[in-house]
Amino acid sequence: MSRFLNHKYAGLTAYTPGEQPRDRQYIKLNTNESPYPPSPAVLSALEEADVAALRLYSDPEGTSLREKLAGLYGVESGQVFLSNGSDDILNFAFMAFGSDGAVFPSLTYSFYPVFANLHGVPYETVPLREDFSVDAAILAGQGKLTVLANPNAPTGVALSLEQVESVVAADPNHVVVVDEAYVDFGAQSAVTLLEKYDNLLVVMTFSKSRSMAGARLGFALGSRDLIQDLEKLKYATNPYNVNRLTLKLGEAAVDSNEYFRENARRIMATRSETAQRLRDLGFSMPDSQANFLFLTHPGLDGEVLYQKCKSRGILIRHFSDPAIAGYNRVTIGTETEMAAFVQEAEEILREEGL
Amino acid sequence: MSRFLNHKYAGLTAYTPGEQPRDRQYIKLNTNESPYPPSPAVLSALEEADVAALRLYSDPEGTSLREKLAGLYGVESGQVFLSNGSDDILNFAFMAFGSDGAVFPSLTYSFYPVFANLHGVPYETVPLREDFSVDAAILAGQGKLTVLANPNAPTGVALSLEQVESVVAADPNHVVVVDEAYVDFGAQSAVTLLEKYDNLLVVMTFSKSRSMAGARLGFALGSRDLIQDLEKLKYATNPYNVNRLTLKLGEAAVDSNEYFRENARRIMATRSETAQRLRDLGFSMPDSQANFLFLTHPGLDGEVLYQKCKSRGILIRHFSDPAIAGYNRVTIGTETEMAAFVQEAEEILREEGL
Repeated sequence: MSRFLNHKYAGLTAYTPGEQPRDRQYIKLNTNESPYPPSPAVLSALEEADVAALRLYSDPEGTSLREKLAGLYGVESGQVFLSNGSDDILNFAFMAFGSDGAVFPSLTYSFYPVFANLHGVPYETVPLREDFSVDAAILAGQGKLTVLANPNAPTGVALSLEQVESVVAADPNHVVVVDEAYVDFGAQSAVTLLEKYDNLLVVMTFSKSRSMAGARLGFALGSRDLIQDLEKLKYATNPYNVNRLTLKLGEAAVDSNEYFRENARRIMATRSETAQRLRDLGFSMPDSQANFLFLTHPGLDGEVLYQKCKSRGILIRHFSDPAIAGYNRVTIGTETEMAAFVQEAEEILREEGL
Repeated sequence: MSRFLNHKYAGLTAYTPGEQPRDRQYIKLNTNESPYPPSPAVLSALEEADVAALRLYSDPEGTSLREKLAGLYGVESGQVFLSNGSDDILNFAFMAFGSDGAVFPSLTYSFYPVFANLHGVPYETVPLREDFSVDAAILAGQGKLTVLANPNAPTGVALSLEQVESVVAADPNHVVVVDEAYVDFGAQSAVTLLEKYDNLLVVMTFSKSRSMAGARLGFALGSRDLIQDLEKLKYATNPYNVNRLTLKLGEAAVDSNEYFRENARRIMATRSETAQRLRDLGFSMPDSQANFLFLTHPGLDGEVLYQKCKSRGILIRHFSDPAIAGYNRVTIGTETEMAAFVQEAEEILREEGL
C-alpha cells in the first residue's frame, strides 16, 4: 500500500477471484461459469449500429431491461435494481443496511466478510450443520443485516422456501439479503415472498445460468424503498453503472428465457451423472442445487487433488480456509468436460493408491 | 429512503446526470458526448465469438488493455488502473486518500462533493478567479486530497502544465488527482509529471474524445503504489469491474489512436467557429480547452435559454447552482448541429428583444 492510503483500509484483505492462468489451455471448472454460450438471440443481438451508439452514455435507469425483468418475475419495474455484476449490489447492501452489523453462515461466499470489513460492519457467522446445510433457526432473528446465499456456496446446498421465509419473517426490522446467484439450478426462489416482506432483497445475476459472466450484469428485486436506497448509492458512486451493450444483451437474454432454462436443466443432468460417478469412486459431497459440486475423498488431500488436476489441464477451485482443506469446488461443465474430470480423478486416485 | 438505510446516508444528495428525455428526438448537446462514432477498428472489433465468450468472466487484471495503455502513455502496466468509467476511480480516490479531508475548486465537476459526502470526507472549496480559471496558488499545499479537473468543468478552462505541477509539488504528502476527462481537446496532460511525483494520480476516460461513453471505460495512471491502493479497493468491491466487450473495444480504440486525435481536432475547430459566431451574437464565454462551451448572454436568463432550446429540440445543460444561473454548458456536436444551435440561439435572442 502507499503511504497515502486511509489507515482504515490498511488491514483490509480483498477477495481472491478464481485463478485465470494463461500458460496453457485448461478445462476451466473453477469459477462456476456456464459451459454453454448465451442464447442465439443474444449472440445475434449486436449490430455495428450498437457499437457506433457507444458514443452516447447508457440509460442510467436501464428502463427497458428493468421492465422486462419486472415482467419476468412478476414485480413492478420500480422493484428492480440493475448493476455491474451482483457483487456491486452485495457491496451496496453491506454499505446501506449494515448499521447494526451483519450475520451470515460461517461457510459461504467468501466475499461477504470482505464487504463487511470494507465498510466497517461488524459481523458474526453462524456454523453450518454437519450436513453443510444452513441452520435457519440460528441464522434467523439476529437483529442484524442477514445475508443468505441460497443455494449456498461453495457447498451447493439449498434451503427450502419455507426455511428462507422463516429467516425473512423473523426480523422485520433488518434487511435479509437472499443471494440467488445459483438459484436456477434447482432451488426455489424467494421472489414469491416479496409481496409479503419489505425487508427482503433478492439478488440475482446473469453470470451463471444465463451464460453472461463476462457481460457484468446483476440485478436485485425488493420493495420500492429498498431499491431506492440502492439507487441513491448508485447515483452517488457511478450512475451509468451498466454499459449499453450489456443492457441490450440482457434484454435479448430475458426475451429468450426458455433457452437458459433448458441449459440449466442440462447442467443439472450432468451434475447428477457426475456426482454418481464420483461417489462410485469414493468421493463424497453434499447434494448440490447449484452448478458445482463440493467434493472430498477420504485419504486424498484437497490441495493434492487440485494441484494434480491443474497439472493435467483441469482447473478446479481449492480454498485457503483450513476448515475445508479436504474439499474442492468443481464447476459443472459440458458432459465431455465432466467425463474428462472423472477420468483424471480416477487416475489420480490410482496414483495415490486409493 | 427505507427505514433500513444507514442513517449516515440519510442526508446524502446524489449526483444528477444530464437528462435523457425520450419524448422526442433531440440534438443532444447536454452530456459532453462525442458527435462522432468510435473508430472503424472499434466498430468492426466484435465478432459473434466475442459475444459467445461472454459466458466467461472478463480478465480482472485487464492485462492486455493495460499494456496497450502503458505503451501509449509511456508508463509501466503496473501504473495503469482500469475501471467501469472514471467515476469509479474518483469514488475510490475519495475513499482511499481523503483521510485528511479534500479540497477542490468551488466550481467544478459537481460529483466531487457527492463522493466526499458519501465517504464522510470533509472538504473545502477554493473560489475560481474572475476569469473562471483555477487559482493554483490557493489550491496548492492545503494538506488534503486535492482534486483538479483540467480542463475544468463546466467552464472548459485549463491550467498550464507548470501550474498543475505547482499544485502537485506543493504537498508531497497528499494525493493530487488531476481529472483529465477533457484533456484531449487542447490542454496539456500531467502524465509527463508521473516520473517525478508519486502523489499524482491522472484520471482519464474513453467517454469523451474516444467516443465510448456507453462502453464505460475509465483509467488512471499513477505510481505503482497508488495503483495498488486502487486495486485493493477494486478487489474488495467488484474485481471483474470491466466487461469483456469493453476490454476488447478499448484495445481496438488504443490501436486506432490517430482516429480519435483527428476527431478531437475536428471538434476543436468546430468549437472555435461556434464560439466566434456566438460571440458575434453577444454571448460571452471563457476560452474552452474542452468539448463544450460555457456561455452566457447579458440580459438573457440561463434557464430561459435552456428551456427555449429544449422546446426547439436542442438539449443543453443548465445547472441548479445559483452562482452560475446565467450560464449554460453546450457540448460541441457536429458542424451541422452547432450551426443549428447558433441559429436557434439567434432566434431566441430576437424573440427576447436582445
